[in-house]
Amino acid sequence: MFHHSSKLQYQVRVDKPDPVFAKYLQQAIGGIEGEIRVAMQYFFQAMGARGDAKYRDMLMMTATEELSHIEFLGHAVALNLEGAPVSAQEEAAKDPIVHAIMGGANPRHILSSGLSAMPVNANGVPFDMSHVYATGNLAADMMANATAESGGRVLASRLYNMTDDAGMKDMLSFLIARDTMHQQQWLAVIEELGGWEKQLPIPNSTPEDHEATEHSYYFLNTSLDEPTPEGRWTSGPSLDGKAEFTIKKQPEPQGQKPDLGKAKPGSGAQTEQV
Amino acid sequence: MFHHSSKLQYQVRVDKPDPVFAKYLQQAIGGIEGEIRVAMQYFFQAMGARGDAKYRDMLMMTATEELSHIEFLGHAVALNLEGAPVSAQEEAAKDPIVHAIMGGANPRHILSSGLSAMPVNANGVPFDMSHVYATGNLAADMMANATAESGGRVLASRLYNMTDDAGMKDMLSFLIARDTMHQQQWLAVIEELGGWEKQLPIPNSTPEDHEATEHSYYFLNTSLDEPTPEGRWTSGPSLDGKAEFTIKKQPEPQGQKPDLGKAKPGSGAQTEQV
Amino acid sequence: MFHHSSKLQYQVRVDKPDPVFAKYLQQAIGGIEGEIRVAMQYFFQAMGARGDAKYRDMLMMTATEELSHIEFLGHAVALNLEGAPVSAQEEAAKDPIVHAIMGGANPRHILSSGLSAMPVNANGVPFDMSHVYATGNLAADMMANATAESGGRVLASRLYNMTDDAGMKDMLSFLIARDTMHQQQWLAVIEELGGWEKQLPIPNSTPEDHEATEHSYYFLNTSLDEPTPEGRWTSGPSLDGKAEFTIKKQPEPQGQKPDLGKAKPGSGAQTEQV
Amino acid sequence: MFHHSSKLQYQVRVDKPDPVFAKYLQQAIGGIEGEIRVAMQYFFQAMGARGDAKYRDMLMMTATEELSHIEFLGHAVALNLEGAPVSAQEEAAKDPIVHAIMGGANPRHILSSGLSAMPVNANGVPFDMSHVYATGNLAADMMANATAESGGRVLASRLYNMTDDAGMKDMLSFLIARDTMHQQQWLAVIEELGGWEKQLPIPNSTPEDHEATEHSYYFLNTSLDEPTPEGRWTSGPSLDGKAEFTIKKQPEPQGQKPDLGKAKPGSGAQTEQV
Amino acid sequence: MFHHSSKLQYQVRVDKPDPVFAKYLQQAIGGIEGEIRVAMQYFFQAMGARGDAKYRDMLMMTATEELSHIEFLGHAVALNLEGAPVSAQEEAAKDPIVHAIMGGANPRHILSSGLSAMPVNANGVPFDMSHVYATGNLAADMMANATAESGGRVLASRLYNMTDDAGMKDMLSFLIARDTMHQQQWLAVIEELGGWEKQLPIPNSTPEDHEATEHSYYFLNTSLDEPTPEGRWTSGPSLDGKAEFTIKKQPEPQGQKPDLGKAKPGSGAQTEQV
Amino acid sequence: MFHHSSKLQYQVRVDKPDPVFAKYLQQAIGGIEGEIRVAMQYFFQAMGARGDAKYRDMLMMTATEELSHIEFLGHAVALNLEGAPVSAQEEAAKDPIVHAIMGGANPRHILSSGLSAMPVNANGVPFDMSHVYATGNLAADMMANATAESGGRVLASRLYNMTDDAGMKDMLSFLIARDTMHQQQWLAVIEELGGWEKQLPIPNSTPEDHEATEHSYYFLNTSLDEPTPEGRWTSGPSLDGKAEFTIKKQPEPQGQKPDLGKAKPGSGAQTEQV
Repeated sequence: MFHHSSKLQYQVRVDKPDPVFAKYLQQAIGGIEGEIRVAMQYFFQAMGARGDAKYRDMLMMTATEELSHIEFLGHAVALNLEGAPVSAQEEAAKDPIVHAIMGGANPRHILSSGLSAMPVNANGVPFDMSHVYATGNLAADMMANATAESGGRVLASRLYNMTDDAGMKDMLSFLIARDTMHQQQWLAVIEELGGWEKQLPIPNSTPEDHEATEHSYYFLNTSLDEPTPEGRWTSGPSLDGKAEFTIKKQPEPQGQKPDLGKAKPGSGAQTEQV
Repeated sequence: MFHHSSKLQYQVRVDKPDPVFAKYLQQAIGGIEGEIRVAMQYFFQAMGARGDAKYRDMLMMTATEELSHIEFLGHAVALNLEGAPVSAQEEAAKDPIVHAIMGGANPRHILSSGLSAMPVNANGVPFDMSHVYATGNLAADMMANATAESGGRVLASRLYNMTDDAGMKDMLSFLIARDTMHQQQWLAVIEELGGWEKQLPIPNSTPEDHEATEHSYYFLNTSLDEPTPEGRWTSGPSLDGKAEFTIKKQPEPQGQKPDLGKAKPGSGAQTEQV
Repeated sequence: MFHHSSKLQYQVRVDKPDPVFAKYLQQAIGGIEGEIRVAMQYFFQAMGARGDAKYRDMLMMTATEELSHIEFLGHAVALNLEGAPVSAQEEAAKDPIVHAIMGGANPRHILSSGLSAMPVNANGVPFDMSHVYATGNLAADMMANATAESGGRVLASRLYNMTDDAGMKDMLSFLIARDTMHQQQWLAVIEELGGWEKQLPIPNSTPEDHEATEHSYYFLNTSLDEPTPEGRWTSGPSLDGKAEFTIKKQPEPQGQKPDLGKAKPGSGAQTEQV
Repeated sequence: MFHHSSKLQYQVRVDKPDPVFAKYLQQAIGGIEGEIRVAMQYFFQAMGARGDAKYRDMLMMTATEELSHIEFLGHAVALNLEGAPVSAQEEAAKDPIVHAIMGGANPRHILSSGLSAMPVNANGVPFDMSHVYATGNLAADMMANATAESGGRVLASRLYNMTDDAGMKDMLSFLIARDTMHQQQWLAVIEELGGWEKQLPIPNSTPEDHEATEHSYYFLNTSLDEPTPEGRWTSGPSLDGKAEFTIKKQPEPQGQKPDLGKAKPGSGAQTEQV
Repeated sequence: MFHHSSKLQYQVRVDKPDPVFAKYLQQAIGGIEGEIRVAMQYFFQAMGARGDAKYRDMLMMTATEELSHIEFLGHAVALNLEGAPVSAQEEAAKDPIVHAIMGGANPRHILSSGLSAMPVNANGVPFDMSHVYATGNLAADMMANATAESGGRVLASRLYNMTDDAGMKDMLSFLIARDTMHQQQWLAVIEELGGWEKQLPIPNSTPEDHEATEHSYYFLNTSLDEPTPEGRWTSGPSLDGKAEFTIKKQPEPQGQKPDLGKAKPGSGAQTEQV
Repeated sequence: MFHHSSKLQYQVRVDKPDPVFAKYLQQAIGGIEGEIRVAMQYFFQAMGARGDAKYRDMLMMTATEELSHIEFLGHAVALNLEGAPVSAQEEAAKDPIVHAIMGGANPRHILSSGLSAMPVNANGVPFDMSHVYATGNLAADMMANATAESGGRVLASRLYNMTDDAGMKDMLSFLIARDTMHQQQWLAVIEELGGWEKQLPIPNSTPEDHEATEHSYYFLNTSLDEPTPEGRWTSGPSLDGKAEFTIKKQPEPQGQKPDLGKAKPGSGAQTEQV
């Protein structure tokens, strides 16, 4: 069960409101790299967690933290929209510079939300929940989470660079820090469970006879003219310790030429196909 | 530039066509765990790759391989739909068992595609390209790719379990194998670049003074009643080797109670808010 | 800031797991009538609330409650999926009755989530955040919320009817009750602010000279052959007390026949249009 | 059956074409507050209307009116796009002011539609029909309709403020007026049927023993630190006249701590979860 | 301006209600081959039509007809849902055959719409307006319309085959007929304007020096192993009469190997990329 | 099976990077008129092709070519983003002109992709695969393909007009040329199969007694006040040579007034409807 306290997890201060930066900040709320995504992803993973209960608890606790991140980011968006002109008659709107700046703002911040945050990204595209990755496989979920936090910290770093506002930089430095921790905490689960050697391949519960293992450890070079890019993945032991990596260069196709024959009568095809 | 040869990368055989399994297989084509996603994700990452060119090459080669996976899976869907009734007058359609089975099939396999594969998932929801994760950050992209392949191999393993068809099991065992390799090849890039210690936090290029590092290494317990789930993430050195993990339990909020004051006249609020 | 406690807001019991009912329950999580929607709608309205702070508090408190509803519904879905076959080799899967039942289940409950809840509706379509209605206008938001709770209680009542499981009926009777309260609490705000007479038309802050009031109080009968359906809306005082309702039957168009003339050279039209 | 006459329902005049305002106007066509939405919502509600036929007629008549609103708004968008530069060689495009203005326009008005209206919102996001709320419950539908018209009138009022064009202001004053009527006509149905006392809770046909009525009339304060915001919803008779409102402050969870146990073998989980 | 008359354009009769066929029929309402799409496509094309006004009129008249098609199809869906069980207690729901049949129905027909039509396809996916193709180019629009009607008539033919209900067959035979006409009327515009020879390539207004005409008339064989499939497109005069078709087999790439160099400092890349 | 060679199909040169044109170019990658769409459409049509195998080959070869188009367009986007400011501290970002220009750019080119192409359109809306039209009917598919190429060439022509960059004009002149060929090659299939006379109506395999042919050849004038727009479609032989076109002006509805009667008890309606 969830509870709320009335103060924000972190102080939000906007020294100089900027409706264009409000639009940019939306990416951190409703973008695929944003906080709605991680809050919901961890929440659904927690609800589906099976096995050692501590991972469920861990997921739910961080899901709860991410809800608080949405909250202070939402406040930051609203503060950046303070003072944005809502009428063509306002002095500000008549100033060509403000007018040009507003051209780069999200019109729905004025038309739809009345100067407050929306669950959309920086292009105004609403977040959709297909981005909640929750597989029921602990290792796959941990990977998905570390990925989400990587995208999140890349985004927060870019936002930090794109503003001159000291209050916003302060808030973003907090977000960058928490993303640092979150990246590591999910990867630490993998490490605690024995690292790649034990956790790969994911799922590690697939019986070996379900796998055509002769195809499991070669890098396939599908280029007609490019040498194989060599590295850790083309020789040496595989990360799961079960085999050696090799290279397979531009092999002959192993399958047939597909042929579906004629169309079935009554299937809606042209007569010429039947 | 792309080229094509007329045979499939891998042999596809369906011993006993099954329109319900055709619906299931769609998840491997147009699901978020499917082949369109990885093909397009690696393709777009390759197009945006900066730095050592070998990663671009590697991404493009595997993107190309994934296109070939779409192709043989698409053929498998069509073969599973062979013989599905397209008319209420067919004998098969009158058989109550076939009728019941068809209730579980995707109606658009009959109504829209004429018994062939579609770029949709097992619920018939079309794939959308927002799932192409490509950040311009090499490590974040590698994580996203290993995640996609984890979801992919979980899915292929589940599909393997859900069929009795020997041909389908053979094809899926090939997919499982290639997903094994792909998981590892992307993680091998991380390892080659120095592993987590050098690559974390992602992006590792964020200047340290952009980060409120006092918040970077504690696990936040947001629960009112649950003890902190302890593990690799609550004590010991952080994965980037820069600090020690600690615990912060249910802290006081650090921010203000948000207050946006009155609504701006002319902003479309009710009079009572202004 | 959000917090969590480890127990569910309400007890969840499933006497006889039913994967088809799990699919149905998804509508209450990820449908437009579901709990993600109201949780996020109240949350975003709260973040954008201007004017008397008590409405912000009220919205945030109920948003928090709705998050707890997602949580127990998610658990109910997982419990309904317990025992669903994950392999064609299981005895259950070979039973034609179970097989037929599974045809009506959501395949992604097996293929994608590993027998747990997803943020999708009963058709497997992911929830998208465009359904978070938050206008910055208090009365419009209250109406949107009462509407959402009406749809929610209609849905919960239908789900109640569609199950025979005593545990599920108990849980749904709690949801029905809370939806009763939530419908009323949002409408009570309208009443507290003076009812329709003072709150209509929404927004009540639009200056009267922005409105062509000669068109504000007639019901327009656009039918060629049907008499005007008469009622409270065709005569008597308007709900805002400002005028009398009247009827306008199938009026002449007031505007011009539209004519855009020729296409602009260089605009990509056919030569014949230019 | 529908018919058409060649003139617009209302005169459209644009004194000074403005491609940025064309983008803004799109919200009134393809936004969730727009005319496609209400036209289709009333149309689908009419098609599903059961009970007294006059509500079906009323819905269909107003659906028809809303189709006419799409039509004149679409013309307004095209007129605002007249003269927008379609080539980098045009004088206008070389004027830095026009160039800056075009930066704020919708590029697809030039690239995709050839200077005419599209069924998208002000961010260029296409309208999707999930926003057609039609429940088969008359009261829920009336609420949804009054909500849609509230959002619509808020939007029209904001658009009115954002333009200086006398023609556009005239057209918008007509829209504002019709939204006034439409808000009231749907609420008048509720009033005619006995008002909240008889119509609440929606659906009013749910048998009382399907509801845990001990949970039906308290406002739940889920905050850890905030007093209950008191008002019409915390004391006094409920709007349906069946009970008194009360307050429940931060109750203990009533449910269990969820525990899904181990993952099922063969379900695609990691070995450590099984 | 639109008008309505109370009767349906065509008689709808359902002899034996079938909730599964109701689901199938949804494809003809809210599918990409369905009536909402063509109604809206012709409507938006009409609103943007420039050049000879008769095409605008033609488009608007047929748009209006398609609205009437939505209406009778919506009625057909509702009639097919008559008698579907809405409670687990109904006798019908207890009949295993009915139960199995309902497994193949759309659950939202019961849960969300109360036994009536929805603006969704046969998978329950809502129609989205991105499928309204309207380019401002008359020939491109005519092609898009003939395409839509082709998909529509394929669908109607398949639906005809999938039902045994005489009433439904009658209604579908009307739809098939109207789609026949609509296919031809759009193509007749092309013919009236001089046929392919004058209308191709679309747009025919593109100045010839904007085109690298040396690449305009060869079929490119990109296969490594397959001979060129020869036909009307590999030799003989082009359809626009301007050149002869030829074949280009598997050419060398004409472009460079792409190289984006190093990542920009501060762009959020890994240090190793900069 | 697919293969790749390292060079681009066509040379890409950007003389003066322009982030706003990068945004525009996205329409040619991820728009409905773009290259992802045609690549995937031809690919899925090929996989489902039944009948003469040469059409499958033709489709697959052009699908492969379109993948190469995505690749060089993606490179063009990245080159146009070279030099775009990624920090508010850069000199460029402080230049008001650059600042204003960036207001018109896609913020996600900086925030999400790190200065490279994305699978989105010019509004930043991700491509979704519902636009892959593949019906299993050869003629319908050919029409869909010619339509897609018409939209594509209209778009490329508009993009050509909107840039002053010689490199971009060169690349677009190649795209315009290939779209010329592709339009014609799909229409040539129709011609080879006997032209409209033999291919219409689509599907030409629908038995004549499935069609109410008395409704197949009249143009329906649904206008109350407009004369019928006459042309090739109102008189003379139909394009399939089977009948003469005629006109039907504003006919009486042929169907009943719909009436669904009362709502079913337990269906979630209001009591007043039951």
